[in-house]
Amino acid sequence: MIIVYDVSVDRVSKVCYYLRRYLNWVQNSVFEGNITDKQWAEIQHGLKELTKDAEDSVRLYSFRTQDAVTVSTIGQEKGDTCTII
Amino acid sequence: MIIVYDVSVDRVSKVCYYLRRYLNWVQNSVFEGNITDKQWAEIQHGLKELTKDAEDSVRLYSFRTQDAVTVSTIGQEKGDTCTII
Repeated sequence: MIIVYDVSVDRVSKVCYYLRRYLNWVQNSVFEGNITDKQWAEIQHGLKELTKDAEDSVRLYSFRTQDAVTVSTIGQEKGDTCTII
Repeated sequence: MIIVYDVSVDRVSKVCYYLRRYLNWVQNSVFEGNITDKQWAEIQHGLKELTKDAEDSVRLYSFRTQDAVTVSTIGQEKGDTCTII
């Protein structure tokens, strides 16, 4: 799955650290990874707790199989980190 | 397809306006839409021109069919705009 988020700067670090437990950080505000259905439910619950519906936006893309999606990158492949405090 | 970008603030607006020609803006630095193979090649070329490999990162996810991906949103569904100047 892929998760992209656009959340208030007050919460961006919490969301980043939370998602790192399940997924790989690939870019500013973007995570990717393979998870189980149970983890998927956990993440949805966790994100609802961490974000504010009126201000934040998190978009979740899920695929049954990894070969359903082709990924390519232009420019840097960024490392794994949550830099914004 | 989905495109997410993490580019220098100097170029973010150019990239946003460029991608709007082909795709729908769904969130800060995230676009989605259906495109042809020809448009896909054009976008890749255009993004290479607009970004700097050493500093920027653009990630492109493509799917053969729209039903390969399930999309859900937590919080706001944001509108279509390029606000950063």
